[in-house]
Amino acid sequence: MAEKVTAGIVVIGNEVLSGRTADVNIPFIARRLTDVGIELREVRVVQDDEAAIAEAVLALAGKFTYVFTTGGIGPTHDDITMAAIAKAFGVRVVRDPVVEDRLRGYYGNRLVPASLRMADFPEGARVIYHDQGWAPGCMIENVAILAGSPVHMQVMFEALIPLLQQGTPLHTKTIDAWLSESRLADDLRLLQTRFETVELGSYPYKSDVGGEAKFGTAVVIRGEDGKAVEDAAAAVSAMVVELGGVLR
Amino acid sequence: MAEKVTAGIVVIGNEVLSGRTADVNIPFIARRLTDVGIELREVRVVQDDEAAIAEAVLALAGKFTYVFTTGGIGPTHDDITMAAIAKAFGVRVVRDPVVEDRLRGYYGNRLVPASLRMADFPEGARVIYHDQGWAPGCMIENVAILAGSPVHMQVMFEALIPLLQQGTPLHTKTIDAWLSESRLADDLRLLQTRFETVELGSYPYKSDVGGEAKFGTAVVIRGEDGKAVEDAAAAVSAMVVELGGVLR
Repeated sequence: MAEKVTAGIVVIGNEVLSGRTADVNIPFIARRLTDVGIELREVRVVQDDEAAIAEAVLALAGKFTYVFTTGGIGPTHDDITMAAIAKAFGVRVVRDPVVEDRLRGYYGNRLVPASLRMADFPEGARVIYHDQGWAPGCMIENVAILAGSPVHMQVMFEALIPLLQQGTPLHTKTIDAWLSESRLADDLRLLQTRFETVELGSYPYKSDVGGEAKFGTAVVIRGEDGKAVEDAAAAVSAMVVELGGVLR
Repeated sequence: MAEKVTAGIVVIGNEVLSGRTADVNIPFIARRLTDVGIELREVRVVQDDEAAIAEAVLALAGKFTYVFTTGGIGPTHDDITMAAIAKAFGVRVVRDPVVEDRLRGYYGNRLVPASLRMADFPEGARVIYHDQGWAPGCMIENVAILAGSPVHMQVMFEALIPLLQQGTPLHTKTIDAWLSESRLADDLRLLQTRFETVELGSYPYKSDVGGEAKFGTAVVIRGEDGKAVEDAAAAVSAMVVELGGVLR
């Protein structure tokens, strides 16, 4: 079996903590990591504050194979991620001449001094080039530094993916049924004991169907062994029907 | 000036980390805390794992006035939040007889043994009653334990709000303009120096306007002093116009 590859995310974002912006980067990165078999184990959202960024990045970098940061890498005074992470790793921030040239070409006469801040990286970081003209992200040690704006983040992330060690993607099946979660809880617990190599998660919901509230539950079966996942899914389906639930 | 009231959130959610579910509880809680002057300083999303939950909850409980947890409090085997937090605080999980009675009334003949798990709380926790029939959340020390399902979480949260110490709500103004972030970065930095008591955040975006990509930036001005926020907002507007931007 392949080695477990794990990850954490640090979202740098006063705008997320104030409720002004609903983060959409976490679900994007989470799905893409799941695609390539990297297990996302923890996310932290911290303020635009040098000490808070450094603490979160170092804590997760010590625990997981990779850390991805989003936010705080633009041209303005509140973009402090590069400096905070450089300081965390005890290195300087240096201007990359190749990126500087690219930015000069991209911005042309719209370039202002602050634009060139986007060519600054922690010393020793690997620049992650992409095929757009604007600024790239970078990777220092096991920490990838990405933009906060979702369009820019996604381009940077896709450029990074081929450079990462990948794991074994999990097999996943979902059994969705009209049946309240309480009704299946006792039997599902027994099934979890029977199928030890898979993880059974249950997610209740309430839907309006023709003006009437109906209760449903999605049971998600995940595991590295495809056969075990299939067997457990069949057992969950049978259990739901036995309990009087209707598969959706 | 009122004492600063701060908060952290711990999201317990394999489904968020796998990318299956996009969390909507963080933005809801973030906005409501901002409304009542409580400053949300950090969010952690952790796996449905006893040690991971305990570590995150204790870390944030030690740093902030309040911690809110979401998820993992239903009837199934993967709902381990109550047990994990009880263990973190060194207490047992005990069944609350009042909540048990309520659940028996609510579920009637749909009640199964597992349903009563939702009457279990860490010993010494304060049950946060709400006016719906289903299970309530609770508060132990400075940690409020809430549901993961957004409808349920919101009812629990609104029942909790009157019990919290509240702070001074921040004044906020947003100046939104067609102008790239790079263009205003240098001048905005100077304004930040001039208006020390406010926080200037800038958020760039790209919009399709009649098939053409246009660059805009929202500058968010926040602070406890309303007059300073108004003055800084006026200065940002003037700066934008001076730089050739168009206010939206």
